[in-house]
Amino acid sequence: MEIHPQLLADCLVLGNWGNDTLLLHRNASLPWFILVPETTAADFLDLASARRAELLERLSSLSRLLKHELGYCKVNLGAIGNVVPQMHLHVVGRQPGDACWPKPVWGNLPEGPTYTDAALDHLKEQLRSHCALDILPSFRTGGPRE
Amino acid sequence: MEIHPQLLADCLVLGNWGNDTLLLHRNASLPWFILVPETTAADFLDLASARRAELLERLSSLSRLLKHELGYCKVNLGAIGNVVPQMHLHVVGRQPGDACWPKPVWGNLPEGPTYTDAALDHLKEQLRSHCALDILPSFRTGGPRE
Repeated sequence: MEIHPQLLADCLVLGNWGNDTLLLHRNASLPWFILVPETTAADFLDLASARRAELLERLSSLSRLLKHELGYCKVNLGAIGNVVPQMHLHVVGRQPGDACWPKPVWGNLPEGPTYTDAALDHLKEQLRSHCALDILPSFRTGGPRE
Repeated sequence: MEIHPQLLADCLVLGNWGNDTLLLHRNASLPWFILVPETTAADFLDLASARRAELLERLSSLSRLLKHELGYCKVNLGAIGNVVPQMHLHVVGRQPGDACWPKPVWGNLPEGPTYTDAALDHLKEQLRSHCALDILPSFRTGGPRE
């Protein structure tokens, strides 16, 4: 599946659930996942209920990881897509005092650090074991998937 | 169900689906619905899958109303709740050139007009017929439900 260039500029590609692709925002201030479903529909609520449910199981597994493994008390969910037309779903770990608390991340998150290779390897292992994500063998921190 | 005072300050109460309450943001620049589920869970992704599906059916009916009856090309969905802890789900009709396009509404929508009684009556009738919402008999534009 082709990923919109703006998403690839902002994010690392983590892996896949079937034909859906999981991205991670490069700003490591917060754990900010972006799931890109394989679909031509514009909006999440346009999808059929079975497909919505499938995607929500994946998003919920990310939320459980954020809350139970990474210790975030709050998870923000968003499906916006006013700038990038390809459907993409945001799941973001939040906590009081974080880099833009209590504002939503969109348009409010200041520039932050990038992920180290070690931090990414650890997160990748957690995603594989807790969320059953197929991690890309070519996973690298330096750039998006070719 | 008790609705958080901040939500009542920002919104009109439109009606109910069972024990869930539908609000409408008072800023009439955009159609901005807020569904308040009866739950003590903090986040939408914490809910069981059957409950999520039930709520998504309601949110999808709002999305269809926005797209097919009100003519909005885009629907933004959000579950944030960093300020108001009571779970509430945003469904917002968007279109290029609207009052804060392409930014998300949260924190970006300028002050706007309020709804007229006629506009609200018309919307209420659409919600009753297209979304099977139980409209409150005490529905008034001047303030929240007592």
